[in-house]
Amino acid sequence: MDNIADEPIGLFDSGIGGLTVAREILRNLPHEQIVYFGDTARVPYGSKTRETVVRYAEQIMRFLLTQNIKAIVIACNTASAYAIDDISAQAGRPVIGVVEPGAVMAAQATENKRVGIMATAATIESRSYDKAIARIDPAVQTFGQACPILVPLVEEGWIDDPVTIEVLKRYLHPLLEKDVDTIVLGCTHYPLLRKVIRRLVGDKIHLINPAYETAQALKKLLEEKKLLREKPAEEGARYPYRFFVSDNAERFADFAQSILPVDVRTATKIPIEHY
Amino acid sequence: MDNIADEPIGLFDSGIGGLTVAREILRNLPHEQIVYFGDTARVPYGSKTRETVVRYAEQIMRFLLTQNIKAIVIACNTASAYAIDDISAQAGRPVIGVVEPGAVMAAQATENKRVGIMATAATIESRSYDKAIARIDPAVQTFGQACPILVPLVEEGWIDDPVTIEVLKRYLHPLLEKDVDTIVLGCTHYPLLRKVIRRLVGDKIHLINPAYETAQALKKLLEEKKLLREKPAEEGARYPYRFFVSDNAERFADFAQSILPVDVRTATKIPIEHY
Repeated sequence: MDNIADEPIGLFDSGIGGLTVAREILRNLPHEQIVYFGDTARVPYGSKTRETVVRYAEQIMRFLLTQNIKAIVIACNTASAYAIDDISAQAGRPVIGVVEPGAVMAAQATENKRVGIMATAATIESRSYDKAIARIDPAVQTFGQACPILVPLVEEGWIDDPVTIEVLKRYLHPLLEKDVDTIVLGCTHYPLLRKVIRRLVGDKIHLINPAYETAQALKKLLEEKKLLREKPAEEGARYPYRFFVSDNAERFADFAQSILPVDVRTATKIPIEHY
Repeated sequence: MDNIADEPIGLFDSGIGGLTVAREILRNLPHEQIVYFGDTARVPYGSKTRETVVRYAEQIMRFLLTQNIKAIVIACNTASAYAIDDISAQAGRPVIGVVEPGAVMAAQATENKRVGIMATAATIESRSYDKAIARIDPAVQTFGQACPILVPLVEEGWIDDPVTIEVLKRYLHPLLEKDVDTIVLGCTHYPLLRKVIRRLVGDKIHLINPAYETAQALKKLLEEKKLLREKPAEEGARYPYRFFVSDNAERFADFAQSILPVDVRTATKIPIEHY
């Protein structure tokens, strides 16, 4: 009988951003296999309603369950914020999102109990980080800042760029005014701007990358459930990463190749609305 | 028997941008009724592939056909660029997109036969404006500039704003270097930036607004087909504008109210992927 621990992890995002989470899993849990789904036909989620994001997440869950996965990682802040309870209730296996691990680390890191959250409009509106941090430490005050221009800037490739710096200054200003000592990079694209943000905020502010914290939390969860894969994939065995998208498989594969330190062969397009 | 000319026009866009086209129709064809569909659950189209945009457009066409429409306006540059042939072949009634009317006016307006096109990545990649202009006047040279940051900036409300001005300068620079005397605002959001663009390019460049040209072309088309509505809606008759969306009906109605000089009562959410 197959060992469940040898099955892959199912991971999904609205598009390419979740690749930063896949990268952290690859670095921190190198023996794990991943089935990645990016909803490139309906990206972005950050401007959509809870009802729509939950419906999309449920379709993706049903697809991932066809792939014999042992656990699900919601590698998208908006989908984690809106859909984690529904997906956890329906998936029949461990589910982890990026919000909770990010919130845990933010609550631990802050010394003055003032945490800023940069995220999409939907994530900010959901107040998911605020609620998760309050559950961990009710003394922490949180301040949200929706940053809708950042994802397009990252996707345009304008990273260390005067326009992006000006936009970041504008988004960071209200948080710095509130004297936060910790900022959550609450969208999977934002860690790609980390160096520029670090330069703007100085050395004294903790920058929390939920992608990294999620990989650590996933490791702990799989250990607890005895689902951690111990052995590396055998030479010539099934390829450890598989990528599925709802649109533009070629562009996705190119981008994944630029983010991940593995050979991304191809991505496969599937009709996600039929799941 | 009902007069077909009294039936509404079906108009669709990936989201809210098509409201600039609805506004021009309202101004120029005040007796017409409109059924508007905005695909807010899958917006934007400008970064998606032809195959996906055509599939979405076909679903919307099937929905609009349930509304007894007499003609279809594709009020989205990307959908016009990719899907007009498919929709024209299947709709069984007149179909007009925004690209052709914009191209006709650009070819007429240019004196030095050098036209720049600002649009989404998908519209630029389709080369639809270039091909349409070449059919009208093969002597005209065209220069495309994808402007992916502009839609998010407009939706953030940063119109006459230093960031937007810097982004516009960067996108306009390559076109001005090519010495164009005419620029097509090839995305329905861009006319909202018209004043800022005018200030940056000076008085000598023709700015083409395909939304306006489309309303004029629609008038001509309906006249030719004897489908122009002559009489105003009767007092208390069916409301002349109806709005449907795939997500976030409330936010859509608010935005529509800010764009259109009519009382936008409500928008209705429908499950577009079932059409």
